[in-house]
Amino acid sequence: MKKPGCRLPRRTGPPADRMPDRLLAAVARDEQVAVSRLRQGLKQGLIVIPMNLRHRCRAVGIGKGMRTKVNANLGTSPDRTSLKLELAKLKAACAAGADTVMDLSTGGDIPAIRRAIVAESPVPVGTVPLYEASYRARRLGKSFAELTPGELLAVIDEHCRDGVDFITVHCGIRRPALSLLKRRPRLTGVVSRGGSMILEWMSLNGQENPLYQYYDELLAIARAHRVCLSLGDGLRPGSIADATDEAQVSELVVIGELVERARAAGVMAMVEGPGHVPLNQIQANVALEKVVCHDAPFYVLGPLVTDIGCGHDHITSAIGGALASYYGADFLCYVTPSEHLGLPDVDDVRTGVIAAKLAAHAGDVARGDPRALARDRALSEARARLDWPRMLKLSVDPQRAEKVFRARASATTDACTMCGEFCAMKKFREVVKTGNRSAKTENQQEE
Amino acid sequence: MKKPGCRLPRRTGPPADRMPDRLLAAVARDEQVAVSRLRQGLKQGLIVIPMNLRHRCRAVGIGKGMRTKVNANLGTSPDRTSLKLELAKLKAACAAGADTVMDLSTGGDIPAIRRAIVAESPVPVGTVPLYEASYRARRLGKSFAELTPGELLAVIDEHCRDGVDFITVHCGIRRPALSLLKRRPRLTGVVSRGGSMILEWMSLNGQENPLYQYYDELLAIARAHRVCLSLGDGLRPGSIADATDEAQVSELVVIGELVERARAAGVMAMVEGPGHVPLNQIQANVALEKVVCHDAPFYVLGPLVTDIGCGHDHITSAIGGALASYYGADFLCYVTPSEHLGLPDVDDVRTGVIAAKLAAHAGDVARGDPRALARDRALSEARARLDWPRMLKLSVDPQRAEKVFRARASATTDACTMCGEFCAMKKFREVVKTGNRSAKTENQQEE
Repeated sequence: MKKPGCRLPRRTGPPADRMPDRLLAAVARDEQVAVSRLRQGLKQGLIVIPMNLRHRCRAVGIGKGMRTKVNANLGTSPDRTSLKLELAKLKAACAAGADTVMDLSTGGDIPAIRRAIVAESPVPVGTVPLYEASYRARRLGKSFAELTPGELLAVIDEHCRDGVDFITVHCGIRRPALSLLKRRPRLTGVVSRGGSMILEWMSLNGQENPLYQYYDELLAIARAHRVCLSLGDGLRPGSIADATDEAQVSELVVIGELVERARAAGVMAMVEGPGHVPLNQIQANVALEKVVCHDAPFYVLGPLVTDIGCGHDHITSAIGGALASYYGADFLCYVTPSEHLGLPDVDDVRTGVIAAKLAAHAGDVARGDPRALARDRALSEARARLDWPRMLKLSVDPQRAEKVFRARASATTDACTMCGEFCAMKKFREVVKTGNRSAKTENQQEE
Repeated sequence: MKKPGCRLPRRTGPPADRMPDRLLAAVARDEQVAVSRLRQGLKQGLIVIPMNLRHRCRAVGIGKGMRTKVNANLGTSPDRTSLKLELAKLKAACAAGADTVMDLSTGGDIPAIRRAIVAESPVPVGTVPLYEASYRARRLGKSFAELTPGELLAVIDEHCRDGVDFITVHCGIRRPALSLLKRRPRLTGVVSRGGSMILEWMSLNGQENPLYQYYDELLAIARAHRVCLSLGDGLRPGSIADATDEAQVSELVVIGELVERARAAGVMAMVEGPGHVPLNQIQANVALEKVVCHDAPFYVLGPLVTDIGCGHDHITSAIGGALASYYGADFLCYVTPSEHLGLPDVDDVRTGVIAAKLAAHAGDVARGDPRALARDRALSEARARLDWPRMLKLSVDPQRAEKVFRARASATTDACTMCGEFCAMKKFREVVKTGNRSAKTENQQEE
């Protein structure tokens, strides 16, 4: 095999499970698991803790036995290039509870934006280096397909040097996908930007996917900087009609092989998943990933359970995400209300994170996670006492809950304006009190 | 047994399956099923079409083989009594696609509000007569428990005479519930207003639930006006911790008996369901209702899959509602963003209906309903062509989708500002074109 023609790292990094005790202790405390279990999970590749050797941020555990995590996508597009706006979105995402963010910028000064986000972010940062490669090519008057494998790896290397904690790399699409997609046309073709770029590259060059071809070199770069791979699903379905089809599943099989090679190379890897998936196929999609990809952490985009949700796709994806989490998905990529319509603004980012947090939490509750159950119990205890300050504080979005409650507070009772004096909780307490006084009578009558 | 002491209807109405052909034809067309199947379903009690003999509104089929329907709750509270606001909510709910509405007013001139809503509503209207009974008692300086069974039935009779299409009646709570709730205290006690009223009545009078005791009389009233019963779940869980407990399930068993008695009396009946239920218990809850209540249409409130969603409970309930619909629930009661915090305003009503419609549709898609699948397919076809007008028109909320899209339209491409020139759909079309030109070369290389 030819060399890719890019500078490769001179020295290797630590293997995935050789994380400093300080970081492992932080995750173990956060997740209430033993450090030994965490290290074992890292070693087996069932857990990842994305954190670049150069980046100081929160250590976030993703995978087996960890609570479901939420990612928020940020980033410019060629039409919207403000760094200030991106930093405002970063702030809003973190305030709403995002566990990680991704900078998907495709416009403006991409390296400067990335560096600023890495510098400012309190949580791990992911990127998709292919986007920048494509943008650079265009600025040089070339097409993406004219970039050499070496040039592609050089962009990836630069992202890793900049301190990015995880990168989406579309290594799993191979040449037969081109004829497969022609033989079995899909309703919505290819909806992954990275996926469409790789297909274009393979089509025009008549060669194998360079990220698959030079995967060993990519692993060497990732390991040198302790960057976690997020193996992208370039053929994810973009509509209910295309869900769980041959193209999607055959890419997943290749990704399973790449997971094993990453583990052998001491590199952390997770697997990206769909996409548009009907409710009745979500369990199968999660089970399939867990088997085919050897229990690698599963990072899903949604899934969106219908195609008609434009303007409300944070809801369609919360439905799918909750179910995916319940069935074992580890990491939910948020979807905002502006999905399919335009780049999200700060409000959309906030709403998207809250919806995904609710989905993740609902999944954790259904899995029986003791901390998730304890939070629901604490809130409901406060609710039964009509202890409004505590109820609002424990809710997913205290800021909004407080605002709605205050705007409609009752002038006449301590109950809210939904029921006012007809509050069932209040009435039931009275019944119990009365019942206690007359308990003897009642028991006598029952006998 | 004593007479309830209220005027009973002098003549009976038609049995449930003796609906005018015109109405059956409308439902059959809407649902794309045969009229004979519809009539069979009505006769067996597997389908209801709530429509009072005196009310002219859309005929809506709920139950086996019908698409999942959505109800929007309207109504004043003692703190908020404007009729104008309620009519504005009615309009917003119907514009957003509500299949039915319920007037749950507990404040202001309740009969006038009900009559105005019945007169204005293009869709079936439901009520909870107990609320008005309680309000009347209070205005007379009595407690609810001081009302006689005859007075309760008289209020129900009045609702039926006013043209209400379905009524929630909490007939399934029986006396042993009082001691059960004491023996096994719940985290959130009783959260149904109707349920708490009946418990109070039984506790203070030391007698059985009058709506159970005089169920035959209630059936006679319902049949005389062709009013559909919605058998309320007064002991529904108000928190994840209380879900699917002994109190809830024992009430459901009684309701199963009442369903059979309604069918024998030629009265349409559906069954109300929870409430707060974790994702992992939703399938069991739907299956339980279908078995215990002899496949009566199941009308669920949410279910809410976590307790922490204050301010965003339209999302927690859309998650639960979608899954319930997939597993066989027939009718979703919406939950608005102001649930648990205050009475909804017009915007909340709109948002609540859209979220519930998405849940209902996602359930229908997962069940394989051909019309639901066709709509997703039509939208995705438009999406693949970047046919924005059609895509926006087919979405669940064209008004909002259009607004978001226009506000962020790209100046440079026909793609949206999410990806701009990096639109995967556009790129993939180019790849396919190029691929077709160079197909021969590729095939040769593959061989």
